[in-house]
Amino acid sequence: MSSPTDFLDAARALLGPRGFTDDPELIDPWLTDWRGRFSGRALGLASPATTTEVAALVRLCAEHGVPIVPQGGNSGMSGGATPDPSGTAIILSLRRMDMIREIDPLARQVTCEAGVVLQRLHEEAEKYRLRFPLTLGGKGSATIGGLISTNAGGTQVLRHGTMRAQVLGLEAVLADGSVLDSLTPLKKDNRGFDLKQLLIGSEGTLGIVTAANLRLLPEIGGRVVAWAGLPSISAARQLLLHFEKVAGDSLEGFEVLPAHCLASVLAHLPDARPPLAGQHAWHALIELVAPADGAEQLATNAETMLATALEQELLEDAVIASNEGQAEAFWQLRDAIAPAERAIGPAMQHDISVPVAKMARFVEEAAPDIEQKFPGTTAVGFGHLGDGNIHFHVLAPKGAVRGEWEASEGKVISAYVHDLVTQFGGSISAEHGIGQMKRDELGRLGDPVALALMRSIKQALDPNGLLNPGKLVPLAQEGASP
Amino acid sequence: MSSPTDFLDAARALLGPRGFTDDPELIDPWLTDWRGRFSGRALGLASPATTTEVAALVRLCAEHGVPIVPQGGNSGMSGGATPDPSGTAIILSLRRMDMIREIDPLARQVTCEAGVVLQRLHEEAEKYRLRFPLTLGGKGSATIGGLISTNAGGTQVLRHGTMRAQVLGLEAVLADGSVLDSLTPLKKDNRGFDLKQLLIGSEGTLGIVTAANLRLLPEIGGRVVAWAGLPSISAARQLLLHFEKVAGDSLEGFEVLPAHCLASVLAHLPDARPPLAGQHAWHALIELVAPADGAEQLATNAETMLATALEQELLEDAVIASNEGQAEAFWQLRDAIAPAERAIGPAMQHDISVPVAKMARFVEEAAPDIEQKFPGTTAVGFGHLGDGNIHFHVLAPKGAVRGEWEASEGKVISAYVHDLVTQFGGSISAEHGIGQMKRDELGRLGDPVALALMRSIKQALDPNGLLNPGKLVPLAQEGASP
Repeated sequence: MSSPTDFLDAARALLGPRGFTDDPELIDPWLTDWRGRFSGRALGLASPATTTEVAALVRLCAEHGVPIVPQGGNSGMSGGATPDPSGTAIILSLRRMDMIREIDPLARQVTCEAGVVLQRLHEEAEKYRLRFPLTLGGKGSATIGGLISTNAGGTQVLRHGTMRAQVLGLEAVLADGSVLDSLTPLKKDNRGFDLKQLLIGSEGTLGIVTAANLRLLPEIGGRVVAWAGLPSISAARQLLLHFEKVAGDSLEGFEVLPAHCLASVLAHLPDARPPLAGQHAWHALIELVAPADGAEQLATNAETMLATALEQELLEDAVIASNEGQAEAFWQLRDAIAPAERAIGPAMQHDISVPVAKMARFVEEAAPDIEQKFPGTTAVGFGHLGDGNIHFHVLAPKGAVRGEWEASEGKVISAYVHDLVTQFGGSISAEHGIGQMKRDELGRLGDPVALALMRSIKQALDPNGLLNPGKLVPLAQEGASP
Repeated sequence: MSSPTDFLDAARALLGPRGFTDDPELIDPWLTDWRGRFSGRALGLASPATTTEVAALVRLCAEHGVPIVPQGGNSGMSGGATPDPSGTAIILSLRRMDMIREIDPLARQVTCEAGVVLQRLHEEAEKYRLRFPLTLGGKGSATIGGLISTNAGGTQVLRHGTMRAQVLGLEAVLADGSVLDSLTPLKKDNRGFDLKQLLIGSEGTLGIVTAANLRLLPEIGGRVVAWAGLPSISAARQLLLHFEKVAGDSLEGFEVLPAHCLASVLAHLPDARPPLAGQHAWHALIELVAPADGAEQLATNAETMLATALEQELLEDAVIASNEGQAEAFWQLRDAIAPAERAIGPAMQHDISVPVAKMARFVEEAAPDIEQKFPGTTAVGFGHLGDGNIHFHVLAPKGAVRGEWEASEGKVISAYVHDLVTQFGGSISAEHGIGQMKRDELGRLGDPVALALMRSIKQALDPNGLLNPGKLVPLAQEGASP
């Protein structure tokens, strides 16, 4: 390996002053993930402007044995875009690659670069009376490249699938600097292994996504957002089955939360009001969408659907948002759960999934089990019932010290939650990915056959272990940088 | 390597007389693909009854260096399940593994083994008022394992996607005999690379699919099948855009055929009648489906949609099938094209795709170009316009000798067609796969970066090259059996 100075000179020469810096002040904001849980150091920050520049940089890194940490909006949940403390790696920011190369409104497709921010994509699509059917809390910072690399989820997965379902074509730079161009979308293409599927969700460990062709959908004609009070999460499951049956494709979101979460949010947001007058053990937030010209029909249908559910005793009470402002307010109650719970005190947050049919049972059994095993804790599960995806938070006992508790009892609790979810045939990472946060847990609990396969693939595609080392693949560091 | 006798004895001991045979009479029917285009020899025919037996057999083959050719219904289109002439490989038939392990009607999921025949799956789903949304001509023989391994398409891809979109979970035996079990369907699971995606469409070269969890949909309430006469394939594209807009999710199929195909079918099927009285250069077959209770509404809507299309001069004439019998008759006209064209004389048949927006232009330009370049030939394109998937047939000049023509001029024509489709950014295999038939063409025309990646993955997952050698991956044979 050559000296870092040689590499830095070469990188500067390659990318110019806008494209590469080793100025600590400029690098510093990108060394820590947005939640402040992971921090590292870096040799430099590369911000190439084109795919050609990314490819040349990757070749340069390969020559010099310099590891690469790809980074989009730096708003990931698992530390997947944060370098390790060694300071040997560079951060490769894709943020400068933010061109929307083409929108084809007839084919309903958009080709955009990795650095395009999700919210901007939404806005661009709207101009054509189209929509991109994936959204999430971090839409103001999350980039298309990051969303693809983590196979991001969000609140519309029930109907439209995760990021994987939106990607029609992909462009990526591989470990040797070659460019895989499968951007042209073909609805049917059976020329061998579907390589783009391998890159989606691989968190930058197999290649660096530089652009993608994404599907768009017609804009919606309107939506109905309803709030229902329920006696239990099992009842929520029954209500979901009811809506799947009667609402069909118009059912776009189905979120559940326990009374505890609603109370936390109401305490946290001074202007928030409870949607229903009475007390309910559980709540469901339901979103239905109508095609163009179908808004009135949907409003009528939605009332019938809720009335039938009430008759069948599938819910205790329900209300339909009377206007778009109220609909937004309902969603705000849902979106504010995480910050509201965080404000109460330290908590371990788990992004887990189980088969949809088992989700109610999991929450009903796991929550009291944990509260009993770890006295003083409060366990709450909320989230995407229709996807079997629970955000399962365990709040620390009163008086626990932030920072200390997470590293001691919190860690034990997380391992216990992961054990439970594995027993249920579930996943320790539903939508947030593995990154560095869950890598060791994946190594501990993952299927050994799947892990061996992942290691083989990682070794084959990145033999020198320079692509996002230490992330995602447990023990991948064994074969890392020579 | 040990002697074949050692292996045969061990295989017999492992699987018993029902599970393994080297009787040439019993093997013979499986040595040739159903269209009689590829033929080979085999050391034996294994028919394991369980995943455990498949795994043990694969381990045994690995020990003895015996290549394995997995086979389902032996109704593939590209020779992917036919052994080579060396006689060193065994055929591994999955047909005995035909259990439907579980149907979960609430979750709308079915877990079935690789040997389950597609038609049986349809029938099983119907018992629960559900349906499996993929069908194709060979449904009476095609197995789930084969459909997954080739990522099969069919006539419902427009709305429901290829086989890939139906697979929620997978069980497969890998080259070392280990079993990858990702059968449990999780709607969200971000624990690293999506390994099942790699196996889907890999034609048995990376692993042997033994079971799958598949999605089911609610049964339909009814369908409307319409036939339209059109001046051109460009007009068909406009009509498709119209239906995508006004029919939305109820549009389930949109097939196109030129006058030549219809004439061939009418000549071939004595009882068939033309759906329309007049002459039209092109025809479209349109299927719309209704949800439960929506049949009447759909029938009304369909009439309006066609009337609007007529007003807007998007079609010349149209008729709606007046009953299910007539609907079937319309579909029969479409399904009989391939046999009807074959009856005329020798033809080169190409299963290709281009971006949907370019399909009309491709057919309009390629057909006359080929007829001019190869005098006496007739070029016809028909198929799944909504998917950009054309079955592009070039019929031999009159008097051409079957068998001879295909191997001489026919071969040159195919290479020419593949060159053209590549220039259009398309695929030389839309839905039939690569197998042995198109392996060299994929090597010639495939993106070198993608090919290198495929070879790395093949080498990593099957280092001794024992899984379906000579299929799919160009030059994979370089690293084959030691």
